[in-house]
Amino acid sequence: MRTVMSEADLASFLVREFPQVQADFAVERLTADGIVMRLRVGDRHLRPGGTVSGPNIFALADVAVYLAILARIGPVALAVTTNGAVDFLRKPVAGVDLIGEARLLKLGRVLAVGDVLIRSEGMDEPVARASMTYSIPPKGQGR
Amino acid sequence: MRTVMSEADLASFLVREFPQVQADFAVERLTADGIVMRLRVGDRHLRPGGTVSGPNIFALADVAVYLAILARIGPVALAVTTNGAVDFLRKPVAGVDLIGEARLLKLGRVLAVGDVLIRSEGMDEPVARASMTYSIPPKGQGR
Amino acid sequence: MRTVMSEADLASFLVREFPQVQADFAVERLTADGIVMRLRVGDRHLRPGGTVSGPNIFALADVAVYLAILARIGPVALAVTTNGAVDFLRKPVAGVDLIGEARLLKLGRVLAVGDVLIRSEGMDEPVARASMTYSIPPKGQGR
Amino acid sequence: MRTVMSEADLASFLVREFPQVQADFAVERLTADGIVMRLRVGDRHLRPGGTVSGPNIFALADVAVYLAILARIGPVALAVTTNGAVDFLRKPVAGVDLIGEARLLKLGRVLAVGDVLIRSEGMDEPVARASMTYSIPPKGQGR
Repeated sequence: MRTVMSEADLASFLVREFPQVQADFAVERLTADGIVMRLRVGDRHLRPGGTVSGPNIFALADVAVYLAILARIGPVALAVTTNGAVDFLRKPVAGVDLIGEARLLKLGRVLAVGDVLIRSEGMDEPVARASMTYSIPPKGQGR
Repeated sequence: MRTVMSEADLASFLVREFPQVQADFAVERLTADGIVMRLRVGDRHLRPGGTVSGPNIFALADVAVYLAILARIGPVALAVTTNGAVDFLRKPVAGVDLIGEARLLKLGRVLAVGDVLIRSEGMDEPVARASMTYSIPPKGQGR
Repeated sequence: MRTVMSEADLASFLVREFPQVQADFAVERLTADGIVMRLRVGDRHLRPGGTVSGPNIFALADVAVYLAILARIGPVALAVTTNGAVDFLRKPVAGVDLIGEARLLKLGRVLAVGDVLIRSEGMDEPVARASMTYSIPPKGQGR
Repeated sequence: MRTVMSEADLASFLVREFPQVQADFAVERLTADGIVMRLRVGDRHLRPGGTVSGPNIFALADVAVYLAILARIGPVALAVTTNGAVDFLRKPVAGVDLIGEARLLKLGRVLAVGDVLIRSEGMDEPVARASMTYSIPPKGQGR
């Protein structure tokens, strides 16, 4: 799928539009059908036992599919998550960043769907799998 | 279902075990088959447009079902989320707390499942619907 | 929510439009926010062990939310399922019909969402819980 | 992952244990981390408009992950689906079989999780994406 935003464009967009969370995430690279994103794991992301909490894994999946979509349709349209589902598979490795690989499965006029495989950096077995659906507003409209 | 922890017990547990997020949540009340929890909405929970972000809605659902389970099995066992799915239905009302009503649908030996209806306080129509599954470790074991 | 189709209208619609499966299902009653549907359990619905198979439980949830929507928007529009998720909670009772209670959580211009609680007839504890999302085509258009 | 059942073993198992549906499905091939299964599309699988119905797509995903698991743990244990979620992405091509590619993401002691990409045979873009979770009974026990 053709992209209309570069990795640098996406990184700037994140800083500008998501000031509360932008420091948590980094765009690793755009891929042919999606994007690779990093969650910079810090103490604030942890739950008892020292693992990254579920909501932070959800957030990584959400931002990854969101930016994978915007990279293809541009920063104008304000896509909104309508469904997000996560299977938590294994305990993340303590003190290691999480890497989410998102691929777009559908980029329609009204709905976009992507899934994400999340791993502790350097590990082969996934920590979580997620699917995200976004509603794409009609052209020329905000949310 | 019989409870073994009171609302005060659950509130103390939250403060002790989840120091990073405990200030965000409040136990409203235990119900016959679940719990009602509040997300105290602040600026840090918002996404562009002034609505509560998806990961914070996920977090409210997650903590609600988690505490609904612990209220029935006690604080010893460390249940782990294995699946969480959220349907985002409407934009939350700006500047208003979110109230999550969780009900337990199954409290088995190995798995527990609950669902949650989330509303902006005082509103009738739900903002989101979520389902959460937890794996319950065998007795006498930590995670 | 106001209905524009009666229970008899829905039953006729099912016979006419879904000849392959209509004998499996019966409209029990419309409710204030949804519908109650019955799966007439027969040998063809069973899997090893004598329980109703997962796909048949999915089918009951799917048809229940579908008819709950059509009861409110009429039989013209051809809504399409975009997401369906089922939590299987307990083994159904052998040789007993399944009853699905669907409620609509959102009936928007573009998307409709409902969830369903499924029980073996006469039992209190649910066999399954499901959520279904439908895309509603623009007025005047087929699929 | 090492397999303990061959493609022929799985096909025989399907015929023996699932007489109601076995004619609908064929084992295409085992893969390094999963299985490829075919749904032989016939009139009984269709919904209005001539597309394969949602429950039949669910059934393909369910049987694919189920056999992917049994290929690795053997036919003795009776795994039970605990969660199944499907994103329906595109209308299947009329009169064409569906091919489901399942991969196992976790094969634990208690839970197994897989996802499936489903395409109309010969097409590149997926018709549906599904995730399935199975509960695996303790050794030596039936369901």
